[in-house]
Amino acid sequence: MKRILIKDIANKIGESVKLAGWVDVRRDHGKLIFIDLRDSTGKVQTVITPGNKETHEIANGLRPEWVIEMEGEVKKRPENMINPELPLGGIEISANKISVLNKSKTPVFEIGTNGYEINEEIRLKYRYLDLRRERMQKNLMVRHNIVKYFRDYLSERDFIEIETPLLTKSTPEGARDFVVPSRLHQGKFYALPQSPQQYKQLLMIAGVEKYFQVAKAIRDEDTRGDRQPEHTQLDLEMSFADQETIINLIEDLITSLVKTLFPRKKITRLPWPRLTYKEAMEKYKNDKPDLRNDKKNIDELAFGWVIDFPLFEYDEKEKRIAPMHHMFTSPKDEDIGLLGKNPLKITGKLYDMVCNGHELGSGSIRINDPELQKKVFEIIGISEQETLDKFGHLLEAYEYGAPPHGGIALGIDRLVAILQGEPNIREVIAFPKTGDGRDLMMNAPSEIAKEQLDELGIEIKKGKKKP
Amino acid sequence: MKRILIKDIANKIGESVKLAGWVDVRRDHGKLIFIDLRDSTGKVQTVITPGNKETHEIANGLRPEWVIEMEGEVKKRPENMINPELPLGGIEISANKISVLNKSKTPVFEIGTNGYEINEEIRLKYRYLDLRRERMQKNLMVRHNIVKYFRDYLSERDFIEIETPLLTKSTPEGARDFVVPSRLHQGKFYALPQSPQQYKQLLMIAGVEKYFQVAKAIRDEDTRGDRQPEHTQLDLEMSFADQETIINLIEDLITSLVKTLFPRKKITRLPWPRLTYKEAMEKYKNDKPDLRNDKKNIDELAFGWVIDFPLFEYDEKEKRIAPMHHMFTSPKDEDIGLLGKNPLKITGKLYDMVCNGHELGSGSIRINDPELQKKVFEIIGISEQETLDKFGHLLEAYEYGAPPHGGIALGIDRLVAILQGEPNIREVIAFPKTGDGRDLMMNAPSEIAKEQLDELGIEIKKGKKKP
Repeated sequence: MKRILIKDIANKIGESVKLAGWVDVRRDHGKLIFIDLRDSTGKVQTVITPGNKETHEIANGLRPEWVIEMEGEVKKRPENMINPELPLGGIEISANKISVLNKSKTPVFEIGTNGYEINEEIRLKYRYLDLRRERMQKNLMVRHNIVKYFRDYLSERDFIEIETPLLTKSTPEGARDFVVPSRLHQGKFYALPQSPQQYKQLLMIAGVEKYFQVAKAIRDEDTRGDRQPEHTQLDLEMSFADQETIINLIEDLITSLVKTLFPRKKITRLPWPRLTYKEAMEKYKNDKPDLRNDKKNIDELAFGWVIDFPLFEYDEKEKRIAPMHHMFTSPKDEDIGLLGKNPLKITGKLYDMVCNGHELGSGSIRINDPELQKKVFEIIGISEQETLDKFGHLLEAYEYGAPPHGGIALGIDRLVAILQGEPNIREVIAFPKTGDGRDLMMNAPSEIAKEQLDELGIEIKKGKKKP
Repeated sequence: MKRILIKDIANKIGESVKLAGWVDVRRDHGKLIFIDLRDSTGKVQTVITPGNKETHEIANGLRPEWVIEMEGEVKKRPENMINPELPLGGIEISANKISVLNKSKTPVFEIGTNGYEINEEIRLKYRYLDLRRERMQKNLMVRHNIVKYFRDYLSERDFIEIETPLLTKSTPEGARDFVVPSRLHQGKFYALPQSPQQYKQLLMIAGVEKYFQVAKAIRDEDTRGDRQPEHTQLDLEMSFADQETIINLIEDLITSLVKTLFPRKKITRLPWPRLTYKEAMEKYKNDKPDLRNDKKNIDELAFGWVIDFPLFEYDEKEKRIAPMHHMFTSPKDEDIGLLGKNPLKITGKLYDMVCNGHELGSGSIRINDPELQKKVFEIIGISEQETLDKFGHLLEAYEYGAPPHGGIALGIDRLVAILQGEPNIREVIAFPKTGDGRDLMMNAPSEIAKEQLDELGIEIKKGKKKP
């Protein structure tokens, strides 16, 4: 007999089936034993009567989280035993054969709850148990559906997904790079990408026109609340497109996603309101305002755009002018004249997508003129030599017919967390790290062998504190 | 007027349109100027007559690879001017307005050819120009379509795509790890994943049942022919599945993909032939035999399976027993008794997918019993301490109701290269590295600042050779 999934038994009343999964709960009612069997598609109650001695004996030994295979007959429950609160509450399996596929120690925490009450470090250490809970299975599934929706929507509109490298070169993006020592080229390092920013611009110069990628962005940031060293973004770029085109595309993508996958959710205003940076700061003292009508309604989604950001800001700590978003953003055409005079007065072709007080995405129209790009580097204090070393390839690429282009990157972890009503992004990431970047399950980062360091031609500085 | 794509002009005869793209070729025929305009969807001939002085003057100054926007009327070409070899060879645009959006220096190589004749280092350095050629655009597009097909096929069958971390812990997989020094935990390192092997097994233990991921695998290998430090794999795992289930799933996936996306290709034999490792070695002296009938036919695809590999092999160089594939593979049930006696005689639940003399994928049914796993570690000479340090989490996970499970990983780069008839995988990767791991466009790896090293608490060993 072929195993079927629990979700598929509803229309098999009277038939014999084979199921497999985990023991969710075992209850002894006198001679009758009840096993709630769980697989990835649902739960069903099974009954083992004492008549079948061998099976009854096996059932008697079962404990929660054991993996079993079971054959039995699908039956309607007697009227008074129906549980209307469960999807399969009107059905039970009369089991006549059980095999134990694997045993389990007693789990370190409850799996039947939603898990918020459990110490998070323990949940992360035993993530393979934590993910068994219904809430987490659902988060993984919904995340898959959201990302699939992105891909389907964009592919239908002639966007193509292109993978960009993970081993690349340092790009200043506002955070530190993680670096990777090269063994074949000792003394040199790759950087992990803080975003595919340069690559996607180079793809525009390569004539791709409509690019997207569900991409990993990896940033070595200091411990700070709800951050992860690696997060996932929907990265997108278009050539021959203006701000209006990109804003409308993303607004339609997200609105149609919500309507399709989350029909119960209510989007506060359609089309999404647009505020200038100035309006947002004046009215909300905040460049990611929470535009909800009713902050207590968990099904309300107040999407909006914040536009017309200044191109630069003054970094008080570093005592220098810094880009508001990143250094590849184009100034508004009418402000180009201010570059040499008053850069802090320049408005950039910048747009942020916000939702319920979070910034969910950030985009801009990029510079495609090497001279303009050089001026921006100059204003933010990048020397000519550094410009050449770090951005020589990009400036050279701009010399070969770079089309006008722009794009956006949406934070997928945050979007999924908001849509699922989760308090932080770790709840929607299969294997997240702690706030200070540790993987408690794998025990990473960890020490590596001296031979490995030797092969890489590096050594650990003496006298350095070890955590 | 809204810009339209060149592919969409065919049914616009007599209408005015706006196009944008690159100057592919400019030809002066006396007073008439012909510009072949190219965008990501095709090419079309445009004609500029001397009657429109301003436009004629602009057209006169255009050079190859300049980016222009153009308005004009779509016309049928005169009968004697039709070029039946081009998709839009029966059409031309009578241009009445041209704007130059960006200029271009003379490209460093021809873009109109297929590019095989050009020195590859130059192609890689100017990848943004190299990718403009029709062949490369097509490779990117087809790769997108193949990967999209995988995702659609598997999602329809209830597989869910789950992202696993890039910053993880060293997993011995037959190659060296790239490592990433931690700044927050000085002296400790992350490893980049050689594959998501352990994570996907942990997802099975987490109750996911049907997982896949288009995943990056990152390996620090020595320079060796057609290798890349990072490659992409279709990574897949199922619980409660046996070898037959996984083989049949992949065989149907790939066969239907070829029939749908490559209808001209001929699959040599259906169902795919299966050879045992012994048969393959006896008959072909090779565990990835080329099973084509006609090796000269570029449209022939001889898929097949090689099964029943030995679980272990004797590593002559290291003088020890090593896993044939990896250390998580299950022995065949009937061979478990040989573990303590003659491990080299054990057959594993192993299966390789081959095509035209290449190994395209490798899979196995995994161990899900901690005691059996410990025995395998022992046989391959991993000490108890190392077992605990490196695999403690996995062995512990096996104690909590690990279901039977197995999976496979297919090499996407190689598959796309074979399907596109490309001689190497670099032709189907947007931004590949050289054989020795250099990115010639970005100039990576490269030196990093002393302050960066200080922050990481590492230093470069003195007296080390620098390339």
